[in-house]
Amino acid sequence: MTKKNNFNAYSIIAKKRDGKSLTADEINWMVNGLVSGEVEQYQMTALLMAIYLNGMSVSETAALTDSMLYSGKTLKFKGENVVDKHSTGGVGDKASFVLGPIAAACGVKVPMMAGRGLGHTGGTVDKVESIKGFKTALTLEQFKKQLDKEKIVLIGQTKDIAPADKIIYGLRDVTATVESIPLITASIMSKKLAEGANGIVMDIKTGEGAFMSDIKNAKALAKSLRDTAKRFDKRMVTYITDMNQPLGKYVGNSLEIIESIETLKGNGPKDLTDISVKLAGAMIYIAKKASSLKEGEMMAIESIKNGKALEVFRRLIKVQGGDDKVIDDYSRLPLAKIITSFKASKSGYISSIACKEMGLHCVALGGGRNKASDKVDLGVGFIFNKKVGDKVTKGESLVEIYHNKNQAAVVKDIISSMGKEIKIAQSKVASPKLIFEIKEI
Amino acid sequence: MTKKNNFNAYSIIAKKRDGKSLTADEINWMVNGLVSGEVEQYQMTALLMAIYLNGMSVSETAALTDSMLYSGKTLKFKGENVVDKHSTGGVGDKASFVLGPIAAACGVKVPMMAGRGLGHTGGTVDKVESIKGFKTALTLEQFKKQLDKEKIVLIGQTKDIAPADKIIYGLRDVTATVESIPLITASIMSKKLAEGANGIVMDIKTGEGAFMSDIKNAKALAKSLRDTAKRFDKRMVTYITDMNQPLGKYVGNSLEIIESIETLKGNGPKDLTDISVKLAGAMIYIAKKASSLKEGEMMAIESIKNGKALEVFRRLIKVQGGDDKVIDDYSRLPLAKIITSFKASKSGYISSIACKEMGLHCVALGGGRNKASDKVDLGVGFIFNKKVGDKVTKGESLVEIYHNKNQAAVVKDIISSMGKEIKIAQSKVASPKLIFEIKEI
Repeated sequence: MTKKNNFNAYSIIAKKRDGKSLTADEINWMVNGLVSGEVEQYQMTALLMAIYLNGMSVSETAALTDSMLYSGKTLKFKGENVVDKHSTGGVGDKASFVLGPIAAACGVKVPMMAGRGLGHTGGTVDKVESIKGFKTALTLEQFKKQLDKEKIVLIGQTKDIAPADKIIYGLRDVTATVESIPLITASIMSKKLAEGANGIVMDIKTGEGAFMSDIKNAKALAKSLRDTAKRFDKRMVTYITDMNQPLGKYVGNSLEIIESIETLKGNGPKDLTDISVKLAGAMIYIAKKASSLKEGEMMAIESIKNGKALEVFRRLIKVQGGDDKVIDDYSRLPLAKIITSFKASKSGYISSIACKEMGLHCVALGGGRNKASDKVDLGVGFIFNKKVGDKVTKGESLVEIYHNKNQAAVVKDIISSMGKEIKIAQSKVASPKLIFEIKEI
Repeated sequence: MTKKNNFNAYSIIAKKRDGKSLTADEINWMVNGLVSGEVEQYQMTALLMAIYLNGMSVSETAALTDSMLYSGKTLKFKGENVVDKHSTGGVGDKASFVLGPIAAACGVKVPMMAGRGLGHTGGTVDKVESIKGFKTALTLEQFKKQLDKEKIVLIGQTKDIAPADKIIYGLRDVTATVESIPLITASIMSKKLAEGANGIVMDIKTGEGAFMSDIKNAKALAKSLRDTAKRFDKRMVTYITDMNQPLGKYVGNSLEIIESIETLKGNGPKDLTDISVKLAGAMIYIAKKASSLKEGEMMAIESIKNGKALEVFRRLIKVQGGDDKVIDDYSRLPLAKIITSFKASKSGYISSIACKEMGLHCVALGGGRNKASDKVDLGVGFIFNKKVGDKVTKGESLVEIYHNKNQAAVVKDIISSMGKEIKIAQSKVASPKLIFEIKEI
């Protein structure tokens, strides 16, 4: 018998079960064992539940991140200007398409590795595939080359990057262990670090349409992410932003591409414009192309005004094989042909829009996925003519529903639900706060 | 798509994760799903960890017992005199071979379904297989028939009884979720109820050599078992007994059969005799063959004195195909040929014998298993000439080690360890308490 190290899954699980801290070697042994098959999936899920219930310290979280990070290939870039942004996801969140080009226009290298939609939130990869020909399946070699040359690249998740995260996430998803701050932190950070980012801007959504609905949890996640970034000697700015109503006015794949382009043209809605400029400003600052967040924001605003950000997006589409004529002609996007209005039942002020439900309605139309194997309809979605705080008149169209002709029954259900989910108050309602916290390390 | 019920593993796991109570239907759905394959093992282990950490109420534990009980075949006997005993296991615990025949001699029907040894504790089935020809692999039909006719039967665990327990126990064993009171309760009770016992006497071991080393946990387990028995309308007496040193003087498969027969002949060591008489007395009382525990004990003592209990054991061996001549001739048992003594290094009083370690030394000699597939040597073991409280003289033999001729190195290691594990004090040491708690429902 060959001499083996002394680790075994049982004693590692028992240690975390009893609320003790695991060593980096123990965590590493479990993660590598899961990938190699030496540790069984049913052992990992027992550990994941123990982590969910008993937590992990900053050093344990960093060790978990490290193990997952090095379970696959890693990219390295020289210099400080490779900065990525990550959003925890929400409804109508198309900010990547706006802030990525802005940051690149201001000298930041932006390595975007994005996901597909699942559940009530859409996915960046699905959205960009509304643009005919846009290829997101690049090799890591192509990814690196394009980033160096074009300063911006956007690909889908690849199994080469943090494969342990893929396995662990799959297990968490079916064992009620998703909403754990150390597990979320390690999942996000392992991927961002593996793709070679030297700085990261985090957009943590909070509110009814976010995974972290509670602001306290959002703050704890923000802190955990900053602590972990510090351990890996990376710069980070965390934002906690509102997801109590959809971001911007357009929800749906093609529709969100249109709104993103409009925003790059300077015609975007205030919330999407503000958040894109803030986050891009932070990326510019972290990349040391600006000396403060404020200066970064000013540069971001300027890049919209002078059209440079829009040109970066056009170039990105072209370089990745997409139809860049969509920038000037939205009819080249696959938009659903029928539009049905949801109208105000009374006059007053919009007091709330149930955000998660709007995402689920989009899924019901075929614009998102209930399960990973579902096919997505790129043309359906909603335009919200009115947002929280807006004054409305009885009979006015509040939402334009973009759908196909065989979907009358679904649309009827949606309109009936919206009657309860979009609330109108008699007295004036303040516009909701957009940003709750900004912290940097 | 056919209409399905609304249960899903995710929400059931999440509910227990959040410290809420599961309904009987939810528990039943999970257990049945595990057996059918609809629920994945990695989902069950996440739930098991959540149960370990957040506990289960009496009604949840009863529901889990019920689901596991009805996952396989169940036996039913008429009348109140079918009574089994269960021990949570320890080192040198051969009481089943003594109390079973005693109870049967006093009119109790004793349906023994026993396990094999694993880790530091021996197994009843291994021990009885020291007797040449003894068959423990009876069908449930044969089991029932023999119980009716002979009042006593002893078989190994069968996959027909509580198969869900077998799967769940296998998962607990590798995910550090064994030591959970509701899970232990459901595991024990589902098997005992499935085999048709109408009353159960529980011997919960506590101390260094027991799974429940802490008396507080032992009391909690005893209460949980009584509560569950009550739910199923069964009588139960729980004993909490000492396992800080081996029970009796003999440890090892053949050796324990010899000590059991000696005890039935009235020549047993005080601790084994006392505990066997107490537990058998409780079985007699529960079976309504005595009007009090005390009267049951007196009947038990009498059955040893008048030789009837010994004759039941002889008959049991014969009926199950074993060599019943061993009763009068121990040389018919496979006993190891070489005996090496561990001697007292100084004079004084035995103050402690590290119990678990003695069990592990027996495994090291081949007398037990590290893993389920190990083969057991029936002939090796120990005779403890002295127990805690006994006076010893320097150079006196404290332990006779029964081993094979190629085991010199292992024996040397054991002797070296025993020097630290069997402690001798200068001043007098009291004999340890044997029984800590007796409770009935």
